[in-house]
Amino acid sequence: MSAPAALPAEPLVLRDDEGGIATLTLNRPQARNALSRALMEALEAELAAVAADESVKVVVLAAHGAAFCAGHDLKEMRAEPGREMYEALFSQCSRLMTAIVRLPKPVIAKVHAMATAAGCQLVASCDLAYAGASARFATPGVNIGLFCSTPMVALSRAVGRKTALEMLLSGRPLSADEAEAAGLINRAVADDELDATVAQMAGTIAAKSPLTLAIGKEAFYRQAEMPLDEAYAYASQVMTENMMARDAEEGIDAFLGKRPPVWQGR
Amino acid sequence: MSAPAALPAEPLVLRDDEGGIATLTLNRPQARNALSRALMEALEAELAAVAADESVKVVVLAAHGAAFCAGHDLKEMRAEPGREMYEALFSQCSRLMTAIVRLPKPVIAKVHAMATAAGCQLVASCDLAYAGASARFATPGVNIGLFCSTPMVALSRAVGRKTALEMLLSGRPLSADEAEAAGLINRAVADDELDATVAQMAGTIAAKSPLTLAIGKEAFYRQAEMPLDEAYAYASQVMTENMMARDAEEGIDAFLGKRPPVWQGR
Amino acid sequence: MSAPAALPAEPLVLRDDEGGIATLTLNRPQARNALSRALMEALEAELAAVAADESVKVVVLAAHGAAFCAGHDLKEMRAEPGREMYEALFSQCSRLMTAIVRLPKPVIAKVHAMATAAGCQLVASCDLAYAGASARFATPGVNIGLFCSTPMVALSRAVGRKTALEMLLSGRPLSADEAEAAGLINRAVADDELDATVAQMAGTIAAKSPLTLAIGKEAFYRQAEMPLDEAYAYASQVMTENMMARDAEEGIDAFLGKRPPVWQGR
Repeated sequence: MSAPAALPAEPLVLRDDEGGIATLTLNRPQARNALSRALMEALEAELAAVAADESVKVVVLAAHGAAFCAGHDLKEMRAEPGREMYEALFSQCSRLMTAIVRLPKPVIAKVHAMATAAGCQLVASCDLAYAGASARFATPGVNIGLFCSTPMVALSRAVGRKTALEMLLSGRPLSADEAEAAGLINRAVADDELDATVAQMAGTIAAKSPLTLAIGKEAFYRQAEMPLDEAYAYASQVMTENMMARDAEEGIDAFLGKRPPVWQGR
Repeated sequence: MSAPAALPAEPLVLRDDEGGIATLTLNRPQARNALSRALMEALEAELAAVAADESVKVVVLAAHGAAFCAGHDLKEMRAEPGREMYEALFSQCSRLMTAIVRLPKPVIAKVHAMATAAGCQLVASCDLAYAGASARFATPGVNIGLFCSTPMVALSRAVGRKTALEMLLSGRPLSADEAEAAGLINRAVADDELDATVAQMAGTIAAKSPLTLAIGKEAFYRQAEMPLDEAYAYASQVMTENMMARDAEEGIDAFLGKRPPVWQGR
Repeated sequence: MSAPAALPAEPLVLRDDEGGIATLTLNRPQARNALSRALMEALEAELAAVAADESVKVVVLAAHGAAFCAGHDLKEMRAEPGREMYEALFSQCSRLMTAIVRLPKPVIAKVHAMATAAGCQLVASCDLAYAGASARFATPGVNIGLFCSTPMVALSRAVGRKTALEMLLSGRPLSADEAEAAGLINRAVADDELDATVAQMAGTIAAKSPLTLAIGKEAFYRQAEMPLDEAYAYASQVMTENMMARDAEEGIDAFLGKRPPVWQGR
């Protein structure tokens, strides 16, 4: 007799699609969604899948359990110490974060609870972020001797320097309201309004032309790193290409004709 | 008998000078001050004129009618479609926006109503901006399939990334208070206090040395694109040149002598 | 008989150490702590001393008297006018400001009163800043014909463009609350809570690994000037090096073992 088959493990990232919105949910609640290598791999795979899926217009990044995401998995890190492992780990993590930035679809963080270290970096890396009032945001690596150096790449591009440095040097968490004032998230809302807030924003964006969203998101991050003249030359070219597309023609004609547009994604 | 002469068209941009302050007013209210090629040309010409006019110390950019500025003129754009026309249009618009940044005099936006797309870009491109409480700010190109890619060059240099991306990806307008919190404008005031607020700030600045203002404004935008060490080397040089000018000598001596300075603009 | 020896002049910068926190106090209150060449020299020397002193974990920059710091010493500047002197002066000042940024220990500004011109630049240059409610912040060089061009290098890296330009072009001072909203300081508190606020934050940071703080602070300012991909490649390397250090190993093991860490600074 063969041994009974092991129960299939629950996926580390769940995906749920509805109305053009793919919700990816971190599903390692017992470890506060710490980014083990397996969880990062699963998230990268899901991001690649939604990037390639024409039915997906917008991505929501959510999490199950008492924390949104606790950052790296320290036990895993210390279980197999060594330069090579660390290099691989931080490279993988940076690749994951830039995959969000490069994804040709808007990514919205839905933060219901604590987001720390690489978890805070996830929030900072998303295009948009909304949080419940009980969410908290911190980069507390300094407390364990490991400065949040990769998280600060995303954090310092989202908030001002004084705010970023206080978080990084002291480890002090921001409340949801403080995170909104600092620009780390778009809005803090009552906990029981978070789902509806994100659903409404995701629905609004999902109704746009996916081609237009892809053009615009890519251009946003590219021009942000250019000096002014170069940025204008580049953006003017982007707008010309955008105008040559079917969806802009349709959108403008629909607007002038006071009718709803029909996007073709080209 | 010859036909009766057509009434001269009202200028697309009005200019009104008082006390060293030139107010340029967008004057195409029936089209919500949409930036037709003719209106952009008129505004460029007025900016060039005030740049060269020694009597002008400060420029105020205002608008007539129910909107501040509705962005590009979509009817005109669709009337003569084609890559060549679009390239010329977006180049002209980018040239106009950088003309504001490069103008050797402070430019203040006075926003009494809706500023959308390239209209929002105008506000973001001005050195300073004040708005009445009923003003609104939006980059809604995404709604018509044409992402606000050139507006975002100015917008993303004025506000944080999360705010800019929400405006760009969703088209959601900001209230005047939200625009102040985001840094897109300096201050939102009651509608009936807007004129006085702008007049006071323009008057304050018009009392400074025009040479000093020109030196400082140019240096501001140039150093903003440099790494720290280069920025300090450049700014130290700028301050030395500024100190060698007659107006700095006069200003410091007047300050130490507790008397008002008399600027000579050199 | 020889003349009686002159009383030794009081130092221009006082240093007071306690619990790993070195407080450097500008001590030229009769001149509103104007940055004479001698005061800048004294401050540079004290910064170099605390940088090299292993017992110092955190630096607080404070001031005696009715002003925090009034900027350059105008009398001294006009006493010996000339290009060479100005170049030397602005170079020295820029060297002082970058010394704060480069110092391998966090520097906290404690601002109890007016900080103007290069005094405002000092605040903007510190990693963190806290102010009493009666503090004010201004870059009023434009009032005396000398635009605050070197102060704006630090100011424009701390606050948004519209806020920086209003301060620079109009000379208008910010209240402590406005400075907090703009991101120039971390927090405005009641005047009689300023000492305790700074002491608490300094104490919190002084309890961290000094090695980790040094690694993190340097990396913060370096990555801030890089494009995203380069920043991630660099920060990943920094985190790997940080992980290889004794203090990270200790910090993580202490965290996992639920005990307090014992830092060795290596």
